[in-house]
Amino acid sequence: MKKIGVLGGGQLGRMMIQSAMNLNIQVKTLDPDPNAPCKAMAHQFVEGSINEYFTVVEFGKDVDVLTIEMENVNAQALIDIERQGIVVYPRPHHIQMIQDKRVQKQFYLDNGIPTSPFVLLDSKDELEEYEDFLPAVMKVGKGGYDGRGVQVMKSKADFEKGFDAPSVLEKMVDIDKEISIIAARNPSGDITTFPAVEIVYHESNLVDYLLSPASIPSDVEERAKIIAYDLLEKLDYVGLLAIEFFVDKEGNVIVNEIAPRTHNSGHQTIEGNVTSQFDQHIRAILDLPLGDTSRRCASAMVNVLGEKGYTGEAKYEGVEEILAIPGVYIHLYEKKFTKPERKMGHITIIADDKEELLEKVDKVKTHFKVIA
Amino acid sequence: MKKIGVLGGGQLGRMMIQSAMNLNIQVKTLDPDPNAPCKAMAHQFVEGSINEYFTVVEFGKDVDVLTIEMENVNAQALIDIERQGIVVYPRPHHIQMIQDKRVQKQFYLDNGIPTSPFVLLDSKDELEEYEDFLPAVMKVGKGGYDGRGVQVMKSKADFEKGFDAPSVLEKMVDIDKEISIIAARNPSGDITTFPAVEIVYHESNLVDYLLSPASIPSDVEERAKIIAYDLLEKLDYVGLLAIEFFVDKEGNVIVNEIAPRTHNSGHQTIEGNVTSQFDQHIRAILDLPLGDTSRRCASAMVNVLGEKGYTGEAKYEGVEEILAIPGVYIHLYEKKFTKPERKMGHITIIADDKEELLEKVDKVKTHFKVIA
Repeated sequence: MKKIGVLGGGQLGRMMIQSAMNLNIQVKTLDPDPNAPCKAMAHQFVEGSINEYFTVVEFGKDVDVLTIEMENVNAQALIDIERQGIVVYPRPHHIQMIQDKRVQKQFYLDNGIPTSPFVLLDSKDELEEYEDFLPAVMKVGKGGYDGRGVQVMKSKADFEKGFDAPSVLEKMVDIDKEISIIAARNPSGDITTFPAVEIVYHESNLVDYLLSPASIPSDVEERAKIIAYDLLEKLDYVGLLAIEFFVDKEGNVIVNEIAPRTHNSGHQTIEGNVTSQFDQHIRAILDLPLGDTSRRCASAMVNVLGEKGYTGEAKYEGVEEILAIPGVYIHLYEKKFTKPERKMGHITIIADDKEELLEKVDKVKTHFKVIA
Repeated sequence: MKKIGVLGGGQLGRMMIQSAMNLNIQVKTLDPDPNAPCKAMAHQFVEGSINEYFTVVEFGKDVDVLTIEMENVNAQALIDIERQGIVVYPRPHHIQMIQDKRVQKQFYLDNGIPTSPFVLLDSKDELEEYEDFLPAVMKVGKGGYDGRGVQVMKSKADFEKGFDAPSVLEKMVDIDKEISIIAARNPSGDITTFPAVEIVYHESNLVDYLLSPASIPSDVEERAKIIAYDLLEKLDYVGLLAIEFFVDKEGNVIVNEIAPRTHNSGHQTIEGNVTSQFDQHIRAILDLPLGDTSRRCASAMVNVLGEKGYTGEAKYEGVEEILAIPGVYIHLYEKKFTKPERKMGHITIIADDKEELLEKVDKVKTHFKVIA
């Protein structure tokens, strides 16, 4: 029986375990939170920091493959583990590159991957030189997540909100759609991409819901897919890579950001596609044949976020109402406490066509609430 | 967070846990085998006998609902637990009835549920009186399982192979097809049935593979469905009930046997239907709205049995070959040791039509083997 080690014990690891079970794969998880979503489900749960060098090195010693479910891990530890002969997928230098948005952008530029124009800054003082570059978005190189470390710069007046850290200033894109493609590559070099999904953002910058298929022309999807293949090949990547694209008002497709792991924009694949992103990640890192990524039907994914104004032990409202709708799948992450906008779960909705799908999305969003 | 207690920690409990996770339901499992398939996955695994009165009573004390994943449990313990106010679904007296094939058959007769003609015997000596009743099948009332406790009686010469225990002698049915319908009823009285599946038996009397849809006329399926509704209503049943039917050469539909739980003939619902049998069982026992049972596509289920001639630590051959076929899902049960014909897992196959489905079934059966 193979043993996979996973850095991070959150919902992504939890759903990976649900997949791994089917192949008799043992999953060992490292997470600092004793109540992490993987706690009860992992074959072995180790409480500890994924950022602490010696903890990560020690954790990786006895696994067949080491992988991650979030990218802010101690990459140096992974590099050293790999040198000792332990298989680590995605490869540590890819994780390290993706951890720094500056290095990521430079890679796109150097390798002909379409992305928005940018300049690299060492501190906010340098903003003064780039007034002509506005409107733009300033992003810290390292440590940003879910909207943190990101600041829109519309005019000079916004400069004071800038970050005093090595950052990237990206020219604002006149966005028409945001789409995501989840790609996978195994060590044998096989590549697959899931069909593009359309991401609809909530005001808080967390994903509100997503739709599959994305309502984009087929040539736009085809160009995104070609970029995805190109990116994985140029990186010599192994594992799952989530690629978020902007489609601008002129139909240009450019890479926004990538994540070296299973991704929120792929949750609907569990019910909506022949193979799920979690199955695909496991297939990729174990060098198994990659699965069929075809859509089985139209699907949507709604994030379940803690309701504003409620903090404490989580209660779920509307379970009965939404389970009465055909083709609605609740996925909760076993997080004991809710707080405003905490990601507590997701709901997948399947339907025969888009109209029916959006009606169901609306009902789900109306009825289902996490309170305390 | 609700806590479900499950008597039995085998593969059915394991797949129930995969479903329960999605609703933040804690699962506590009782099984005598310290290496049972649920061991690593249950929130709480209690090693102990499901037949031992005090073990079962103690186990049931702190759960919201107590259920089963196999029927040979201590039913008296469940009856007493229910008297103490613990919710037990399926209801203990139904489990008790189903444990005894004699009582089961008598119930069908008394309630107008079509079944084969039968006589009740107290010992094999009584067989002499029923030579005219042959060909027939003798089944022990209690304790038979997967072909054990069942003996075909073609002529008087077979009488010596009879059982010296309270038994039922059932007139042999001229079987055209064997089908199964999985039905569910919640405490509110809602009933659903999954579409009929066709069961193809292996020479060893274990299920070889099953097909959905069953290749039967729609009126045959309709009659089976009506019998299923009738049976659940007359029993005032709660939970999942698997109903195996014979369809005879004249198109008559009669009940063969029932099981008060999730069932081997429902595994393909995980990928093949909108709701899986495991989700449906949880919905039923928690009095949630029952899910849509519609088929999403054609599906088949192949049992993964230990290869003859191999006993020891299990190894799986052909994983790569069959994962390369689109729409093939491996489900292994984390059983460490294999022996001839031990049920080690199952494989679900989905396809757009029956021809494609049977081609894939053939490939799966050719390539996939459990050896030691």
